[in-house]
Amino acid sequence: MRIIGIDPGLRTLGWGVIEAEGGRLRHVANGQCCSEGGVLAERLLSLHTQLSAVVARYLPEAAAVEQTFVNRDGAGTLKLGQARGIAMLVPAQAGLIVGEYAPNAVKKAVVGVGHADKKQVEHMVRLQLPGCAPVGSDAADALAIAICHSFHVATSARLATAIGAAR
Amino acid sequence: MRIIGIDPGLRTLGWGVIEAEGGRLRHVANGQCCSEGGVLAERLLSLHTQLSAVVARYLPEAAAVEQTFVNRDGAGTLKLGQARGIAMLVPAQAGLIVGEYAPNAVKKAVVGVGHADKKQVEHMVRLQLPGCAPVGSDAADALAIAICHSFHVATSARLATAIGAAR
Repeated sequence: MRIIGIDPGLRTLGWGVIEAEGGRLRHVANGQCCSEGGVLAERLLSLHTQLSAVVARYLPEAAAVEQTFVNRDGAGTLKLGQARGIAMLVPAQAGLIVGEYAPNAVKKAVVGVGHADKKQVEHMVRLQLPGCAPVGSDAADALAIAICHSFHVATSARLATAIGAAR
Repeated sequence: MRIIGIDPGLRTLGWGVIEAEGGRLRHVANGQCCSEGGVLAERLLSLHTQLSAVVARYLPEAAAVEQTFVNRDGAGTLKLGQARGIAMLVPAQAGLIVGEYAPNAVKKAVVGVGHADKKQVEHMVRLQLPGCAPVGSDAADALAIAICHSFHVATSARLATAIGAAR
């Protein structure tokens, strides 16, 4: 299954695509969509265009977006919310189901603890996806989100099999 | 000039289209896009589909979106931000320049004071757009935003003429 992970942000939106097959993970691609300065509507349009091109190119079958911290300042939360709206919309427009994971759930899945720093996350992403070189910390976070979603999908599948066998 | 005003919200997103010609205003249409319950990505997709259909049907030449209060709870601000991302994206995708107005700027333009309540806004909207019947308070707010934008455009045009005449 091909999974895209998305780390939303207005200035930099990270994305990472992985392939998950029978417990094995493979890196496909990663990158960052940028929209610096200018009018808000145009920045959102630019993010939408860039992210739509990524989805059209790598054709993921599932998507996962990081849930956002809301305990920062209101203006920052609003900006992030607007970018997150685009991050959720693009995979939904491609017909994908969009999973959502809290940042500490992603860290726990990838690093083993919920309060790892960005360096630890990137280190574990590189270990679990051999040969992968994230273009930045937002792309690394996005790959971590994709890995987290692959674990979630695998667990759900095992659970379904176990329930089926028990019947 | 045909103007669409948009009052963003995740559950209810109000819209209103008016025609402004030489200081005269005419109501064209108004409505509310709804997305109750369900998965967030699907709700955003639904709002995008509904609002895109409105823009495709009424072909506005300019757009204005209400700026959002950020002094409420973080989770509420984030939700509103996500809906606002869609509200800004749709007109930008249609090639429109998207104006933004703070709620009290809209009220001041339409009612004359910055702290008018919803009933006053709807009353003044009905007075300024004879024959118009807003389908709800979010649609009335959206018409008020469109009226506010028409004043802004008219003032800018007069200013440009005055500057031209003074040269």
